[in-house]
Amino acid sequence: MLPSSKSLRPDDVVLTGDRPTGPLHVGHLAGSLQNRVALQGEVTQYLLIADLQALTDHARDPERVAAAVTEVVADYLAVGIDPDRTTIVLQSELPELAELTMLYLDLVSVSRLERNPTVRAEAKARGLARGIPAGFMTYPVSQAADITAFRGTLVPVGADQLPMIEQSNEIVRAVNRLAGRVVLPESRALLSSTAKLPGIDGSAKMSKSAGNTLLLSATPDEIRAAVRAMFTDPRHLRPEDPGRTEGNVVFAYLHAFDPDRAGLEELAERYRRGGVGDAETKRRLETVLTGLLEPIAQRRAEIITDRQRLFDVALEGSRRARPRVAQTLQDVREVFGLRRR
Amino acid sequence: MLPSSKSLRPDDVVLTGDRPTGPLHVGHLAGSLQNRVALQGEVTQYLLIADLQALTDHARDPERVAAAVTEVVADYLAVGIDPDRTTIVLQSELPELAELTMLYLDLVSVSRLERNPTVRAEAKARGLARGIPAGFMTYPVSQAADITAFRGTLVPVGADQLPMIEQSNEIVRAVNRLAGRVVLPESRALLSSTAKLPGIDGSAKMSKSAGNTLLLSATPDEIRAAVRAMFTDPRHLRPEDPGRTEGNVVFAYLHAFDPDRAGLEELAERYRRGGVGDAETKRRLETVLTGLLEPIAQRRAEIITDRQRLFDVALEGSRRARPRVAQTLQDVREVFGLRRR
Repeated sequence: MLPSSKSLRPDDVVLTGDRPTGPLHVGHLAGSLQNRVALQGEVTQYLLIADLQALTDHARDPERVAAAVTEVVADYLAVGIDPDRTTIVLQSELPELAELTMLYLDLVSVSRLERNPTVRAEAKARGLARGIPAGFMTYPVSQAADITAFRGTLVPVGADQLPMIEQSNEIVRAVNRLAGRVVLPESRALLSSTAKLPGIDGSAKMSKSAGNTLLLSATPDEIRAAVRAMFTDPRHLRPEDPGRTEGNVVFAYLHAFDPDRAGLEELAERYRRGGVGDAETKRRLETVLTGLLEPIAQRRAEIITDRQRLFDVALEGSRRARPRVAQTLQDVREVFGLRRR
Repeated sequence: MLPSSKSLRPDDVVLTGDRPTGPLHVGHLAGSLQNRVALQGEVTQYLLIADLQALTDHARDPERVAAAVTEVVADYLAVGIDPDRTTIVLQSELPELAELTMLYLDLVSVSRLERNPTVRAEAKARGLARGIPAGFMTYPVSQAADITAFRGTLVPVGADQLPMIEQSNEIVRAVNRLAGRVVLPESRALLSSTAKLPGIDGSAKMSKSAGNTLLLSATPDEIRAAVRAMFTDPRHLRPEDPGRTEGNVVFAYLHAFDPDRAGLEELAERYRRGGVGDAETKRRLETVLTGLLEPIAQRRAEIITDRQRLFDVALEGSRRARPRVAQTLQDVREVFGLRRR
């Protein structure tokens, strides 16, 4: 799961995180959480819980965002994020991020923001269209503030998020041009090697509202029910029929999580040839997922009982990270002719 | 010059200020500075030097904004603003304003911002069009943060700025609706009773770049030169010709500053009838302006020598105002489900 060592430099600073809109699911585990655990100790790593960004399209539902902050911390700790080795920070606890955003907004044109393909796609997916909140439209600028505040050099993203890195680097170059010297580092995208995990119904996006997700807190019963409901190959009616593993959710999940790679390859070949029933593949996946999620769910159930302690983890990380982001703000303020505070 | 007492309430909080892009001129004196001096002691008054707002369209010229901050403080003190009775604050010294702006951006749609007639007109006047910086497009939201942070209830504006108050009040209502109770007060516009002073060339806008302005620091020679260059009535060729006082810059300035109202009325009537030369009206205006500006320019020349002291006035005011804006931020954070810090 560790990204290829070629892409890592010992002085890299990884900045990544999540929008707290609900507890995390197995898609996050395959796509990012396992990478983050692997990166611990390899490089400096900051995990940002982007509550302000979550509010850009959940301003009418602030309780959901507030509750999700501790849910997400619980997910982090449960999967093995060690807050002593990975600094967990809460966006709204660092006023410097808002101040940087305000300054960066002066360096980006409205038309540039309107052209951002990620924002356009996300706004469309959310049905925002013309009612798009200004905070949502400008969130790539806020994200550039996040990345640069921590002097992040490596940002794990999916391919659909590449325009965000480009936007951040455009701002970095504008600041450096204004200063006449290098004040901020550019960042590189760390593309996930794992394909995005589909929802259990086979749809590309896993979301709580679509009810097609499997949370990290899933009980064995919930795992069983989810695996049973999984979309496979609708033409694979009897075990002896040849089956398709592509687009088959069970195989997508096995591919993401089954540690027995050789056994999995053998199963996939048999499935394609014909002679394997979905009952068998689902049993295997259920075993894999139960083995994977049981310790996570157990640990999570223990720690979620003390929400204040979880919140304190994010507060303590924010407190530790503050001198770093404050330093960046001072440097950028100076470029804008503002005094160092 | 005092706004009618009817519009003032004893518990009113006045929030006003300037974008620091250069020293202030006589247009500011007639349009706002004299009002502010008159309001001192009548109500609580905050004077915001909006350097972040100035940077929204001067990001490539930060030195100009930085230099203008102390120029503007000098102008304030020179015209009689007393920093013990009027709190002078510097926008960039109050991180709470940036944090409030970030939250308010979630409550305003992009299309609403695009419809703001003031922003449209100003962007056009600046030749920004599609290259309009995101910070400029969103500055009405930042202004709402300024007004509400100080719990301003009365905002002196020109008629062209009324949409800004409306935008601010829309945000106030959105916050209060979200909270289910009144968290922020709405504000009222305090419309200037003085007509906007034209440039000395007769154009509607007085600006340093157009070279049609008269600074508060003007020397007697500069006053004489400016008055001589003033646009009058191009058809009024000889003293005995009837002249127009409307659109006549000399009369506009006399109307704004001549304390002898009866004498001025009599002069204007004679001018309209015929029998008064421009030399006479200009002599009168020169006397009025010299009497008005000489003590201001003198005081200004004395204090501008100590820029650090002037900057400290803004720092000290910001420090004093901070608990007030911090309190507002806490209240608004709570509405957004964020913890009180």
